[in-house]
Amino acid sequence: MKKIVIAPDSFKGTLSAIEICNIINQEIEKVFPKCQVISTPIADGGEGTVESFIMSVKGEKVIREVTGPYFEKVQSYYGLIDGGKTAIIEMAAAAGLPLVSGRENPLKTTTYGVGELILHAVKSGVEKIIIGLGGSSTNDGGCGLAAALGVRFLNKKGEDFIPVGETLKEIDKIDITNINKELTGIKMFAMCDVTNPLYGPKGAAHIFGPQKGADQEMVEILDKNLKSYGDLLEKIPGKEKIASLPGAGAAGGLGAGLNGLLNVPLVSGIDMILETIHFDEIIESADLIITGEGKIDGQSLGGKAIFGVSKYAKAKNVPLCVITGDALDKELKGAYGLGISGIFPTNRQALPFTGDKQVSEDNLRYTIRNILTLLRDVKN
Amino acid sequence: MKKIVIAPDSFKGTLSAIEICNIINQEIEKVFPKCQVISTPIADGGEGTVESFIMSVKGEKVIREVTGPYFEKVQSYYGLIDGGKTAIIEMAAAAGLPLVSGRENPLKTTTYGVGELILHAVKSGVEKIIIGLGGSSTNDGGCGLAAALGVRFLNKKGEDFIPVGETLKEIDKIDITNINKELTGIKMFAMCDVTNPLYGPKGAAHIFGPQKGADQEMVEILDKNLKSYGDLLEKIPGKEKIASLPGAGAAGGLGAGLNGLLNVPLVSGIDMILETIHFDEIIESADLIITGEGKIDGQSLGGKAIFGVSKYAKAKNVPLCVITGDALDKELKGAYGLGISGIFPTNRQALPFTGDKQVSEDNLRYTIRNILTLLRDVKN
Repeated sequence: MKKIVIAPDSFKGTLSAIEICNIINQEIEKVFPKCQVISTPIADGGEGTVESFIMSVKGEKVIREVTGPYFEKVQSYYGLIDGGKTAIIEMAAAAGLPLVSGRENPLKTTTYGVGELILHAVKSGVEKIIIGLGGSSTNDGGCGLAAALGVRFLNKKGEDFIPVGETLKEIDKIDITNINKELTGIKMFAMCDVTNPLYGPKGAAHIFGPQKGADQEMVEILDKNLKSYGDLLEKIPGKEKIASLPGAGAAGGLGAGLNGLLNVPLVSGIDMILETIHFDEIIESADLIITGEGKIDGQSLGGKAIFGVSKYAKAKNVPLCVITGDALDKELKGAYGLGISGIFPTNRQALPFTGDKQVSEDNLRYTIRNILTLLRDVKN
Repeated sequence: MKKIVIAPDSFKGTLSAIEICNIINQEIEKVFPKCQVISTPIADGGEGTVESFIMSVKGEKVIREVTGPYFEKVQSYYGLIDGGKTAIIEMAAAAGLPLVSGRENPLKTTTYGVGELILHAVKSGVEKIIIGLGGSSTNDGGCGLAAALGVRFLNKKGEDFIPVGETLKEIDKIDITNINKELTGIKMFAMCDVTNPLYGPKGAAHIFGPQKGADQEMVEILDKNLKSYGDLLEKIPGKEKIASLPGAGAAGGLGAGLNGLLNVPLVSGIDMILETIHFDEIIESADLIITGEGKIDGQSLGGKAIFGVSKYAKAKNVPLCVITGDALDKELKGAYGLGISGIFPTNRQALPFTGDKQVSEDNLRYTIRNILTLLRDVKN
């Protein structure tokens, strides 16, 4: 075994993709000490996305003070890869839940700082910006971000303001004529793996509001405000259906804001990531790719990390081994056609899932060690 | 992959060793269609032991009418292997629970027919007899078997009788002077993987009585009778501790009877089996051995199928892959030193054990398929 590529998603609730890479890497070192190992943790758009990209390909983390969720100053960051041509921004770095821990209030929080990160990246000369939508503390429909980039929100009196969750309904007019000219020609993409619409029972407020600190009453207010905002967005030519666009409700409506106001396409994370890190070059001449996901079922195979990685594995004819907490489908027969050589659940005992991080780590370590040792010992 | 040997124990409660061999064999055919496969299911001494031996090595099943558990005539069988030099007898074939299904009563049942099977084998010219103690419906201390071979049991009036569970206490004297001379020079071994003493809280009646149909009152009677019988056995020179010999309580005290009256050693099944089928020759030049057990923990590694198989695998330097329902120890670190390349639990989901046979089969099939496909695809 000369070269192994590790490209796992996180095990939601227990292990991050980076932690999984580190555990697998340690086990490979024990069993194949001379093997080259490349870790490409699959970012999920939330906290850790920048770090995942930087771990996968050469890059740097840029530290920058920006406006925080409560309009205070916070230390934030983004990533530069591709020799400075591509910026990776995780919205959580300027507007994420960890920044408001203990004082969550989606009526008040803003994405303004995310817009500042974008502007900073633009000024540094990037050609492409990838924004991860995940872990947001906001429900401002991306108005803060848009405002930082020059979009004007006017109330009935014709006064400029920066709308937040509770004031979205006060927007009377949106003026996109003054968007910062430096954005022209910059390719922007928003990585978004939820399909929720902007408002309604499956919308941003109802589904994600509670985890951002909204009680039932607050959810109703936020939802109503998002609807009012959505109705305005839909008056923009070409955006007549924006409120029901899958992903419009991502990150407190940031999906709708980015697409509706700035024409940023919402894209599936995995394909964007693998293309951006040049995964095809990374796996060239690899003997094995190891990927993984907390749970695997029909859905995982259809659209997420494993499926994305498997397309590359198949194209380059590199064997793909999948590690997963649970393998839900009985046969997962389709997996072999997808270029997957083996799917290995990490459960070692017939016991219910506990969410225990240490158990999850032990199980992963044990499973991968056994696979590697077997591969080392058995001549095929 | 040119040659694979499958040597699993049963998954207690769901799949027999033979069923496991068949499932794994089917999967190997799919993934390595040209591979030579040798199945050596590990007999556990109970029902299926003869068949397991015959599946492992060339042999024949001899059908013979003998005395059944209720002294009726039953069709029974034993196995001949090694060109007729070794007989494999499972006591269950003449005195097992399936023969009394719906009318279990360990006060009344006898092992007489097992003795007849032994005699028949002896007359056919065998040099060695291996008796599997497992699945018994009896609690006669092996008196029936011994009587068939010429041991005399006398009551206070000096009358011969064949003791059963309820009449063990009537034995006044045991006369072993008339044991059939044809037994002389025949090597006999009893395969016994329980360590229970003849009587007492861990004895045959208390531990195994209930599964043979004994209620609490019956258990007490049987236990008292076994004690009375044990006291008599312990008067035989050299057998002063027979009642507490580990395994004396196997098969309703048949362990004590075989060892106490006929000097048959009680041996661990796995070593006897592997030696008898010449497992060292079977695995010669194999690329992989697959073994398995329903549960694996410190105990399994210490004394049972996996441990036995691993000694051979290590000696011949053949990689050993273990499939198991549950892997209880966290690391099972010792496994690698034992010559085990990988231990793979078959659970695919974090769910409690249900005992469902179909689930067990699906899980096994899935696990083995994934291992084989990975081994096929990854060049080491």
